[in-house]
Amino acid sequence: MRFSKLYAPTTKDAPKDATLPSHQFLVRGGFISQVGSGLYNFLPMGKIVFDKIKNVVKEEMDETGAQEIQMDVVTPAELWKQSGRYDVFGKELCRFKDRKENEFVLGPTHEEVVVDIVRNRINSYKQLPLHLYQITTKFRDEARPRFGLLRGREFTMKDGYSFHEDEACMKREFDVMEKTYTKIFTRLGLDFRAVEADSGAIGGSGSKEFMVLAQNGEDDIVVCQQCSYAANIEAAKRAPKTTTEEAPEANLSKFKTPDMKTIEDVCNFFKVDPFYSIKAVVKKAVYVDKEEVVVFFVRGNDELQETKAQNACGALDLLDASLEEVERAGLKAGFIGPIGLECVKFYIDLELKEAKNLICGANETDFHMVGVSMFNFNEDRYKDLVSVKANDRCACCGGELGVTKGIEVGHIFQLGQKYAKAMGATFLDKNGKAQPFFMGCYGVGVSRLVAVMIEASHDEKGCIWNKQTAPYLLDIIVSNGKDEAQSAYAEEMYTALKAERLNVLLDDRNERFGFKMKDYELIGLPYALIVGKELDEGFVEIVERKTLEKTVVKKEDALAKLRELLA
Amino acid sequence: MRFSKLYAPTTKDAPKDATLPSHQFLVRGGFISQVGSGLYNFLPMGKIVFDKIKNVVKEEMDETGAQEIQMDVVTPAELWKQSGRYDVFGKELCRFKDRKENEFVLGPTHEEVVVDIVRNRINSYKQLPLHLYQITTKFRDEARPRFGLLRGREFTMKDGYSFHEDEACMKREFDVMEKTYTKIFTRLGLDFRAVEADSGAIGGSGSKEFMVLAQNGEDDIVVCQQCSYAANIEAAKRAPKTTTEEAPEANLSKFKTPDMKTIEDVCNFFKVDPFYSIKAVVKKAVYVDKEEVVVFFVRGNDELQETKAQNACGALDLLDASLEEVERAGLKAGFIGPIGLECVKFYIDLELKEAKNLICGANETDFHMVGVSMFNFNEDRYKDLVSVKANDRCACCGGELGVTKGIEVGHIFQLGQKYAKAMGATFLDKNGKAQPFFMGCYGVGVSRLVAVMIEASHDEKGCIWNKQTAPYLLDIIVSNGKDEAQSAYAEEMYTALKAERLNVLLDDRNERFGFKMKDYELIGLPYALIVGKELDEGFVEIVERKTLEKTVVKKEDALAKLRELLA
Repeated sequence: MRFSKLYAPTTKDAPKDATLPSHQFLVRGGFISQVGSGLYNFLPMGKIVFDKIKNVVKEEMDETGAQEIQMDVVTPAELWKQSGRYDVFGKELCRFKDRKENEFVLGPTHEEVVVDIVRNRINSYKQLPLHLYQITTKFRDEARPRFGLLRGREFTMKDGYSFHEDEACMKREFDVMEKTYTKIFTRLGLDFRAVEADSGAIGGSGSKEFMVLAQNGEDDIVVCQQCSYAANIEAAKRAPKTTTEEAPEANLSKFKTPDMKTIEDVCNFFKVDPFYSIKAVVKKAVYVDKEEVVVFFVRGNDELQETKAQNACGALDLLDASLEEVERAGLKAGFIGPIGLECVKFYIDLELKEAKNLICGANETDFHMVGVSMFNFNEDRYKDLVSVKANDRCACCGGELGVTKGIEVGHIFQLGQKYAKAMGATFLDKNGKAQPFFMGCYGVGVSRLVAVMIEASHDEKGCIWNKQTAPYLLDIIVSNGKDEAQSAYAEEMYTALKAERLNVLLDDRNERFGFKMKDYELIGLPYALIVGKELDEGFVEIVERKTLEKTVVKKEDALAKLRELLA
Repeated sequence: MRFSKLYAPTTKDAPKDATLPSHQFLVRGGFISQVGSGLYNFLPMGKIVFDKIKNVVKEEMDETGAQEIQMDVVTPAELWKQSGRYDVFGKELCRFKDRKENEFVLGPTHEEVVVDIVRNRINSYKQLPLHLYQITTKFRDEARPRFGLLRGREFTMKDGYSFHEDEACMKREFDVMEKTYTKIFTRLGLDFRAVEADSGAIGGSGSKEFMVLAQNGEDDIVVCQQCSYAANIEAAKRAPKTTTEEAPEANLSKFKTPDMKTIEDVCNFFKVDPFYSIKAVVKKAVYVDKEEVVVFFVRGNDELQETKAQNACGALDLLDASLEEVERAGLKAGFIGPIGLECVKFYIDLELKEAKNLICGANETDFHMVGVSMFNFNEDRYKDLVSVKANDRCACCGGELGVTKGIEVGHIFQLGQKYAKAMGATFLDKNGKAQPFFMGCYGVGVSRLVAVMIEASHDEKGCIWNKQTAPYLLDIIVSNGKDEAQSAYAEEMYTALKAERLNVLLDDRNERFGFKMKDYELIGLPYALIVGKELDEGFVEIVERKTLEKTVVKKEDALAKLRELLA
């Protein structure tokens, strides 16, 4: 491609809202352009990168025997009502009516449609397993679209759905997909981890996320420093916390603790370690038909993990409760404890089960209880609620846990029979009995990966593409366009490399060298060939974008050298 | 691919609403499935065909130097307001609001977005011309979705947009696109014509449609039997109609014609040829802000062409007027004429300009005028309004015109400065003066083409794919799956052909031969290899789907023969 013909509108300035390098450099480099909040166009170079990533995903999916299909973006609301998700998906689900007042949604994911495709068409276990996937446009009406392609509203996802006669077969496909995703992200040259994850609005019994390790990731990942355990903080487990501090042994009794509303106040007053105290976190849980105040109890030296809390109470959303709401629910702010608490729903962290010698609020203003033991609560009040922290201990090996940042690029789910049951999608099993399908579903954020490539690989000057995803492999830069020898040599190289089907860019624009070099650094092709005034002495320069190191080569050796580098 | 693994849910019965062969066979053959009114999924074989067509389009577009991009389906309404189309596009434009009550549309076409992409990024004539295209999902909320993929609501279109410094350059690109589209549809093996067309809601000064000739086409195409003239009936011209009948010479006067409300009644009464009468067609024109009754006058032996009529009065839509509406507008139904007509807007067919010796309604119940001459009307009342018919004469060569049916598969437009002006998108010309871009736009109905391939090529048993678009080139049918020799031979052929990268299907299903053969005929791959009991004697059969002719070949010659056929 000749740069003079390429539509790559590079700019000096990044959009004001662009805080991340991938957002800044993809816009500045002319890869994408914004059309609205969370809505981005792929310009020619962005589209090439996008297609390269898409092809890697497609090749690896096809290799597994999964079959590509294409489902509509516009989905009848009726299917979402059948699955029960129409009401529970929240505002991210864009709902609208057509000219005849029929209800539709813009599909954020396609479990419902794919079940409808298979329903009544797959009748026997003999036709199973089956894996259908697509790489198509999705829409999620994000509350806060930001970070460019990383959290946009319209995006492209590879979403695959598998159907099985039993759980074992579903788990086998889950493993195949874990391997396939590993291949995909490895081929893309990314540093990633497969981590245990929360299943969120998709549901099901088990799921894993593929996280690219990146400073600017939105997700916290808990990683064991010793074994292979890794999990999204939303789903991370740890070995139960212990302490070497002495337990404050006391009989169960109530103490006056005037104005001591924080764990710190109370622990200082009683001179005990916060490990032996119970912290109450009050939230407002949102359900389809109601909102209610819910209390979560964790140790005084732990934090509540919000996703775990939301899963515990089965809410669609969990909001902070105002002081007024807390009081209206009959709670005494600062003095809330599980003993005798009846006015609201509450949950207790699993690690507090059977714990003794604790201090907690007495549900009476200015009073706390001491000598509390956690024996008398119903089993289903105990849930995993704590936010795992760095230096906590691994539940698998006891090793030290660390917390790092990641960007989710893939997510695989064991759905079980959730959707098939809800939508009445069954097949006849070996005994001739109708059974709901077991399903798995598997997503890759294809358009997001365009940004992830840069989040994972850039410097202060711009993008650094690897050969797997670069829009072009090489930029041939003519230093002085008016110098005929330079132009002729550059043209010759361009023609020779193109003839070998190597995708290269020739910067033939009538611009200063410095300007072209800045564009090169911003766009970030793996290599540049600089054809400058040293050509007169028989030399040209090859630049590696990653290091910005320049190598001087004889002009007659450049082709062979580039062939080797670009291969 | 093994048929036992392929998700191709074939069925005996077509959907009740499927009247066209393409709709019936694509659903019955398991290529597509319906998810809602005008909404279809592409199943695995449908997706392969779709991709093959898409690749042909992409290859030919890239060859011209056009650059592929990807714009969002969800488009801010603001851009459509800037172009002025938000109000005038009608109900086909699906409008909705996001969670923050911002207005959006589902893009049925992307002139607005592409202008926004280029606006302020292309500043100089030196950066022109530029052609950007995409192959993406579109949505049009059709009033009557029908015919499967042919008139669906969600569909995939290749839409390209070019930008130019002047009209001449725009016209050059228009010609390049005409050639490119000709290549595309030729490569797809279609019998098509490029015809002059109405520009509809897209606008602009000139447009051509690419029509595949097909019995079940929704469009009427006028084709000259003698020269190369061809046009959509909505835009077709003809040589002015003449007659050998004698003109009824008379002075202008009013006659009582009691109860004679039809052209036939009146012409019989006066004993004149309908050529010498004026027919009034009353319509209700819909505008953004009002509806009004409009009268169109054509010769008594002509018919009004609705699209021409709509363009004449600039209405968004043209509906039939009820008798009540006609009378409320002050018109005397059956006695309407242009002389002295003042109560409504009216237009007169161009061929009536300066015509003499005519009979028309007197705008008074039970009266007609005779001896009418058409000299005293304002120039802008005269518009091309007539529907060209078979046997009319060609305006270019005088040859006989015929009318045939076609399906639109492509449409190219010279937009001129319409969008750039409305949206304030300018560049600096050679003189440093800001000018709005000249634009062209060019569409190919990619998903529609999947159906068109079958509308153009099928028989009563099913689809007949050509090699360019077939999901697989060959179906290897094992007659008796329990016969080890048959299975072994079929596997051997399957492996050999696959090794040569020929995309073939092996029907290894445990089904009767007749069942497999029926599926073969329905799915319609170009060739089948039947491995039956004659294998014992050393023979197999090759079937050509198009003719259903069977050729017996020696089993050891089959591979060479197939190589030749599938190449």
